[in-house]
Amino acid sequence: MTEIEARRSVRTYLDLPVEAEKLSRLLKAARLAPSGSNTQPWAFLVVKERETREKIAAAVHNQHWMAQAPVHIVCVGDVRSRIPEDAGPLRLDENSPQEELKQVIRDTAIAAEHIVLEAQAVGLSTCWTAWFRQDELRPLLGIPEDKYVLCVLTVGYSDSHPDARPRKPLDSMLHLEKW
Amino acid sequence: MTEIEARRSVRTYLDLPVEAEKLSRLLKAARLAPSGSNTQPWAFLVVKERETREKIAAAVHNQHWMAQAPVHIVCVGDVRSRIPEDAGPLRLDENSPQEELKQVIRDTAIAAEHIVLEAQAVGLSTCWTAWFRQDELRPLLGIPEDKYVLCVLTVGYSDSHPDARPRKPLDSMLHLEKW
Repeated sequence: MTEIEARRSVRTYLDLPVEAEKLSRLLKAARLAPSGSNTQPWAFLVVKERETREKIAAAVHNQHWMAQAPVHIVCVGDVRSRIPEDAGPLRLDENSPQEELKQVIRDTAIAAEHIVLEAQAVGLSTCWTAWFRQDELRPLLGIPEDKYVLCVLTVGYSDSHPDARPRKPLDSMLHLEKW
Repeated sequence: MTEIEARRSVRTYLDLPVEAEKLSRLLKAARLAPSGSNTQPWAFLVVKERETREKIAAAVHNQHWMAQAPVHIVCVGDVRSRIPEDAGPLRLDENSPQEELKQVIRDTAIAAEHIVLEAQAVGLSTCWTAWFRQDELRPLLGIPEDKYVLCVLTVGYSDSHPDARPRKPLDSMLHLEKW
């Protein structure tokens, strides 16, 4: 697929807005991701306001380039679809042990990558970012403590097309029939 | 993207082999997935032997349809790229709390979905399966206890094209500017 081959993590953006129609395509692609038992355990917070983007960039280890991107899509996993309704209060963080959280991280990652590949298909650039703490990012955006922020995707137009990052040889990651 | 729209979880397969060239394309697509700090923390175990596929199907809650698929790709996350080399023995399971495991699950999920979408692009059908226990599947395949099996993807040709599963309304998963 050309989108998989052409995708790069892009960290410089042009000062151009993202059309509403294109943004909608990205979110529709996320919605079509497969998920365990079709739970669709994800939510997407779309941030366009400059001030909020700057705060997010600061919370993601002061990666100020992020604020250049006109759109941030904060991808959030929600374990509530997998636990009893009366489970009570819950606070998730980077060291939570729950199996349900692992399942939700898996499914939300698939949905986020759908956004990234769909963006590539419509001429937009993106970058996955995840170098933050739940406790710093969630309060900034009003996200409850029982939700898990998987990543912030930066989205926008760019004239940058970095070289592909090096990859390990395929053989080194491959096992045939048995480990 | 047509691949995102056309993808289905397919559970019936034709008795036709998957060409080596196509299988190679799927794995190359996985290898191009983005990963945190470019750690590429994944491995892929390709199973074609019928007997092993039957054992896998039995371990995945006796989903015998899985054995119909001529190829299983077992997608495995490896936290070793993220922990000190002298970290010593490690046993991961569904309730392990490590942040590194969450990061590796995220990245391996992206790579696995690249396989799924590339398969769609070359006319192959797939299904994500993950309804198993680490302790049942790993010994079957000789996978060490410090690796985490994210999923088994079934891969093959099919004449089945199920209807799309229902999806929640886009609005219900969307937040603008703030949660």
